[in-house]
Parts: sequence; structure tokens; C-alpha cells
Amino acid sequence: MKILIIGGNGFIGSHLVDSLLSHGYQVRVFDRSPEKFRAPLPNVEYRLYDFNDFSALTEALEGIDIVFHLLSTTAPSTSNINPASDIEDNLVGTIKLLQIMVQKKITRMIYISSGGTVYGVPQIVPIPESHPLNPICSYGVVKVAIEKYLFMYQQLYGIRSVILRPSNPYGERQGHGGVQGVIGTFLDKLIKNEQIEIWGDGSVVRDFIHVTDLAKLCRIAAEKDVCGVYNTGTGIGYSILDILDVIRNVSGKNCVPTFSLGRKYDVPRSILDISKAKYELKWYPHIDLKQGVARTYDWLVNNS
Amino acid sequence: MKILIIGGNGFIGSHLVDSLLSHGYQVRVFDRSPEKFRAPLPNVEYRLYDFNDFSALTEALEGIDIVFHLLSTTAPSTSNINPASDIEDNLVGTIKLLQIMVQKKITRMIYISSGGTVYGVPQIVPIPESHPLNPICSYGVVKVAIEKYLFMYQQLYGIRSVILRPSNPYGERQGHGGVQGVIGTFLDKLIKNEQIEIWGDGSVVRDFIHVTDLAKLCRIAAEKDVCGVYNTGTGIGYSILDILDVIRNVSGKNCVPTFSLGRKYDVPRSILDISKAKYELKWYPHIDLKQGVARTYDWLVNNS
Repeated sequence: MKILIIGGNGFIGSHLVDSLLSHGYQVRVFDRSPEKFRAPLPNVEYRLYDFNDFSALTEALEGIDIVFHLLSTTAPSTSNINPASDIEDNLVGTIKLLQIMVQKKITRMIYISSGGTVYGVPQIVPIPESHPLNPICSYGVVKVAIEKYLFMYQQLYGIRSVILRPSNPYGERQGHGGVQGVIGTFLDKLIKNEQIEIWGDGSVVRDFIHVTDLAKLCRIAAEKDVCGVYNTGTGIGYSILDILDVIRNVSGKNCVPTFSLGRKYDVPRSILDISKAKYELKWYPHIDLKQGVARTYDWLVNNS
Repeated sequence: MKILIIGGNGFIGSHLVDSLLSHGYQVRVFDRSPEKFRAPLPNVEYRLYDFNDFSALTEALEGIDIVFHLLSTTAPSTSNINPASDIEDNLVGTIKLLQIMVQKKITRMIYISSGGTVYGVPQIVPIPESHPLNPICSYGVVKVAIEKYLFMYQQLYGIRSVILRPSNPYGERQGHGGVQGVIGTFLDKLIKNEQIEIWGDGSVVRDFIHVTDLAKLCRIAAEKDVCGVYNTGTGIGYSILDILDVIRNVSGKNCVPTFSLGRKYDVPRSILDISKAKYELKWYPHIDLKQGVARTYDWLVNNS
């Protein structure tokens, strides 16, 4: 079984590579750049090209049975700066990918959407997959549009998709420069004795999932004979202030944050209802927040 | 009150122009080409440019209070040929429009989405606005994505939108070359004594709304202090075979169609639940199918 991971050198991708290799799959990675925090792995075939390099993408899909699509050129926090290029890079790029898959008769796709943005401001918490999709950032709208195209390509061309909607993933090898995730960013600042800054009053609640639990569900989704959408979180919410407490506890260091203006696109409370993934895919998140933060902290200490 | 109609020289646009002029509004039209079936009107200011001509669009928005966005460069039946250019033309173009509106502080938008495609295969009929959005053509996916961006721009930048989802509009001045609508296409062939061809067995059911009823709701939507999504149809379904009967009845001519293979993207049955527009906007469709077909037939006879 030969698998292509588009975006396989990113944070989630690198853990998915590990999970797939350890289960005996042949893995090819398509990404713009090498992994940021590890040397290339001996058993992985790398294709380093831009997502919009149509001919390189076509060649990378040769002989592939399953495609994982994890790539995004934007993050929720940056996507509203230029929604037009967000659309051109990510949505148009994905359409081109789907068209090549139709040509090559590749019929299995696992897509990483975004449980943290596609729902917008939740009407109920925890949020089920059936919740209305009203994103308040371009990143979320593009993910919704891609989900809709995946559904259409399934109906018309038989590309069977699983769409995972992760909440807030964190863990080892996440970028910690302030764009990707609050846990890595805070830990990095703590280690460097820099000031931790909280946007808003710290009451914003999120569902943090450790990346290895997420990577495991990616693999299971490909193995099971299912299609459709699955929330991927823990079902448990922690506020930003809770996170700070866990960080203090894990590191043994005290830290006093500064507070600055909240961001318009931050929804106040986002926790996913993960009962569908539990029930249908027999998957459970195993790493609790304290364990996960401790692993991330250790990794950062050893890699700073 | 100065109004810009983007796509104002198209089929629906030309009737909206009439409705707005008769109610005393100042109307500017932005479109690629002049109206196909009428000479330019003396009281309308025309700007004939491509939708993606950013500077022309910026100038056209000068001094405008309300924007109607009716433009699409694709139709449901052609959009799947090249979804990437569908996205680039229509979705990216709309984002650029919204960005200019933010700059110019224009805060009112009426958008014509598509009740015939955004829902995909209906789970219940008549279809309420809350029905899941699972289009099976790119035209529908792009409309959904635009709706999502409109919601986002309302939340973040205060552009207050009304989204109308018309079912199958028909009537005078609709293109009848086989792309736009079955009623005009059939009538045109009947008048020219050409063979009428039905895709599938003629059992496909649609909710046909006369264009002047639709244009009236467009105007009302701009006048009322409302935002949100409204289905725009009649709530009544007719099959393609029913349409043929009405056409025979109206024209007094008999015609025997040929039947060919159905199209994958045609959903079997689509009728809209219009109770929300009736209740909140006090709007009712007035022209029944027989009247509407008779008006369209007369217009075609006089313009063939």
C-alpha cells in the first residue's frame, strides 16, 4: 500500500509519517520544504516542490493508493490578510489535485480540515459535526469549500474521502514562532525567559489534542472502510489561563503574562464532540494535557 | 439612493434594473457586455468591464450605497468543465469586490446565490434554508463559498448581506441557447420547429420562478432592514414533462420530444420552501407557470 502525504514535512505530517512507517506502509512525501526539526528519514521518498507545481504533483501521484492532504499555505491567524491568495493557493491547488486523482483513478483521500475554524462561533458546545459551518476567517472558509468539493468529487467521480476536523493540535515539532499554536509558543518563551503575551483576557477555551493522537486517527481513517466527516479532538476544553497553569506546573517555573487586545477571529469557546470518531472508528485520544505539555516541553528544552 | 448592479445586463439583472428604475432608484450597471436583447436604457449608467478589472470595479463602486451582485461567469451545466477557473473568476472576484466595499465603507450587499444547486440532492422537499449544503456542481460550491465569505465579512467588517437563493428562474430575455433554462430553450425550439430534447426521462422536478417575481424580491430585500438567507421560488414543483404540457397548451402546438441520457449533476427533485421570505419579507410570487410561460412565449415570438 503506497501512500502520498501532501504536506508531509509539516507538523502534523511528520507525525503521520512516523505512524504510517511504524505500521509498514510505503510513504512518499510531497512538500515545499524539508522537515524543519528533523533530518530526512531513510525510508521516505521526498518530493520537494510547490503545491501548485502541477507536473511535479502529477508525477508524485504515480503509483499511489491513498492520498493524505495536509497542506495549507496559510494559518487561521494570517489568512484574512489576503483571502484571494489563500483561495488561489489552497482551494485551486486542491481542485487540481482532485483532477489528477480522477485521471489516475486514485480513489482514496484523507483530508485534514479544521475543527477549530469551520464552525465559527459555536451555537452549542461540544460541537457536533452537524453544526452549521459559519467560519469567521478565510482559512476556515477555504477548508469548508474544499470539503464541499471533496463531497462533489465523491458523488461524481468516486473519490472516497474522509475529512478530519482537528481541534487545536499541539506537541513536539510544532512551529513555535507565534503563528501555529499557543502551547508551543508559550513554552518556547518560557524556556527563553521571554514575556508571555495573551491576546484577550485568557478566558478563550480550546480543545487541545496531542499530535500523536491526531496522527493515529489519520492512519485509522485510511484503514477503515468509511467516508465522511469526523471531529478530532479530546472533547475537553481548557482556557488559555488553564494552559498557563499546566505550563507552570510542568516546568516548575512561574511566569506572569501580559494581556493585550483580543483578536476578532478568535471564537470564545470551542470544544469538539468526538463521539462519532469514538463510535465509528474506535479511536480514543490517549495523551492528556499534562502529559502532552510535558512531552512538548522536554522536546523544546532539547531542541532550543 | 444609488445602486450598483454587478451583472446588471444579464437575464435577472435586466429585470432588476426595471424594478429599481420604476421605484425611483439611481442605477449603475457593471457588466462585461451590453444587454443581449435590449438597447441601453437612457436612465442607467453603464460600466462595461470585466469583473476582474479591479480598477474599473473600484471606480464603479464610487458613491454607491447598495451593491447587488448577480454576476457569474459560469452556469451549473458548464461549471464542472473547469472548476479552477470557476473559482478564480467568481470566488476570487467576489473577495476583491468585498475588499473594495470595506475600503469605501459600503455596508449593504444583496447577493444572488442559487437555490437550485447549493443544497445538492435534497434530503427533504420542499427544501428549507437550513438544509445541509452539499452541491454536486462547482457552480454550487462556489456559491456556497461566497455565502460563507459574505457571512465572514458581515461579522468582521460590518457588510450587511442578504443572500437570495433562487430556484429556476425563467421568463422574457433569458438566454435560450440551451445553457440557461429549460423553458426558454424548449419554447425557442418549438417556435423554430426544431426537435426538443429531454435529458433523462422528463421526471426531474423543478421549482420555476418567473424572473419579475425574483427581481421584485431582490428590490424588497434591499429595502427591508434584514440580513440573512432567503429561498426564492414558488414552493411548487413541475416536472419537465409538465413543462412540455404547459408549452403545448400555451402555444397550441403539439411537440414530441426525444429523450437522451440524464446528466449526473441534475438532482431528481428540487422545490424550495419559501415560507421564510413570505413571512419575514412579506413577499409572494404572483405569476403562475401558465401565465409566465405565455409571457415568455409571446416575447420569444416577437423577438425571434
